[in-house]
Amino acid sequence: MPSVHTDKAFEADLRELREKLLAMGAKVEALIADSMRALMERDTPLAEEVTSGDKEVNRLEVEIDDACRRILALRQPAASDLRLITTALKIVTDLERIGDLAVNIAERAKDLNQVPPLKPYVDIPRLSDLALQQVKKALDAFVSSDAAKAEEVLKADDHLDALYLKIFNELLGFMMEDSKNIRRATALMFIAKHLERIGDHATNVAEMVVYMVRGTDIRHPRSRNLPSGS
Amino acid sequence: MPSVHTDKAFEADLRELREKLLAMGAKVEALIADSMRALMERDTPLAEEVTSGDKEVNRLEVEIDDACRRILALRQPAASDLRLITTALKIVTDLERIGDLAVNIAERAKDLNQVPPLKPYVDIPRLSDLALQQVKKALDAFVSSDAAKAEEVLKADDHLDALYLKIFNELLGFMMEDSKNIRRATALMFIAKHLERIGDHATNVAEMVVYMVRGTDIRHPRSRNLPSGS
Repeated sequence: MPSVHTDKAFEADLRELREKLLAMGAKVEALIADSMRALMERDTPLAEEVTSGDKEVNRLEVEIDDACRRILALRQPAASDLRLITTALKIVTDLERIGDLAVNIAERAKDLNQVPPLKPYVDIPRLSDLALQQVKKALDAFVSSDAAKAEEVLKADDHLDALYLKIFNELLGFMMEDSKNIRRATALMFIAKHLERIGDHATNVAEMVVYMVRGTDIRHPRSRNLPSGS
Repeated sequence: MPSVHTDKAFEADLRELREKLLAMGAKVEALIADSMRALMERDTPLAEEVTSGDKEVNRLEVEIDDACRRILALRQPAASDLRLITTALKIVTDLERIGDLAVNIAERAKDLNQVPPLKPYVDIPRLSDLALQQVKKALDAFVSSDAAKAEEVLKADDHLDALYLKIFNELLGFMMEDSKNIRRATALMFIAKHLERIGDHATNVAEMVVYMVRGTDIRHPRSRNLPSGS
């Protein structure tokens, strides 16, 4: 039986892990918001900050992986604690990838900022808001071990997919209309695709949270692949 | 000190884990190859097989995750064994995602098979071959714990990125030339993007293998984000 001291040290380790994951989540959310502001407000210096800010996310990933391995080696957790650690190891991969996608959006914003805007952006910021909400909610579900909240994230993913498809088809229309629109519309198409992918990563996280809490794996009952425009 | 029996049982567990990962890798490689054949040979039934084949990949991910957690709980591995298990947990996430990307390619192929081809495909199958090689090599590096081979994967990623950019710009040219090309060129652009992303996942795996073997984390020294066309 572990001593009280060991239990306390273990709990401190887990608390630190949760805090690091929240810090990484907050940083990633800020990168998404900043990459969109860089696009909406045509702010190229801000786009460059996103690229450098992503380094912090990458550093946090390495730190969290190390923390997980240290806990596994020293504390040999079982049952729900083990599920928490192995889930954390996988969740950081999704968060890191979201950071990369924010950088991709910022890079596209930089290109777009050099030419006149194609049109006022309406649906793209809506898609970005939805994606950001999904990431926040999935991380909340993780830190509070709330499977019901994680399931809300899974349900809401269809809205993102539908909005992405609407944007995709609208941009296709702009491209058909005038070949001068093609380059800008393509860039916006990729931005929309990146936002839709951020939503998919939130879904991944949510699926893992349901597993972590309930101990049953619900991954892959549904396809994350769209029939078209994906 | 663990008994000989425990050692043997542990080794059997690790061997089984490696075998399952190789099976998952082989399945994923087959999906990439089939999705490209579905495109090149305009074979819609084959594209549909990719979608159903991906279910096998998803099933393997869940199995491997379970196997990793079981080993962690029962064997409490340390040092290099612990790194092997935690790496496996993260690698399957990349493999699963590669399976999803193959499905996305197959879905695009189905759309493209309904209309006359835009042009003979030359660079896209080259990109696909490169991506497939990268996945194979990264997995070989994992099962043989070969850091030098993993580093070859990291170096070769630039070739994929360059070829992707060439394809992207060529397709942009087709779109500018004739608005009738836009829909098909967009679909091909996304296929190329998916192949480039498959290469990125191989890079992720390779980075983790270097860490696993050397015990030092080399992730994130370089950006996986392209300056444009990404």
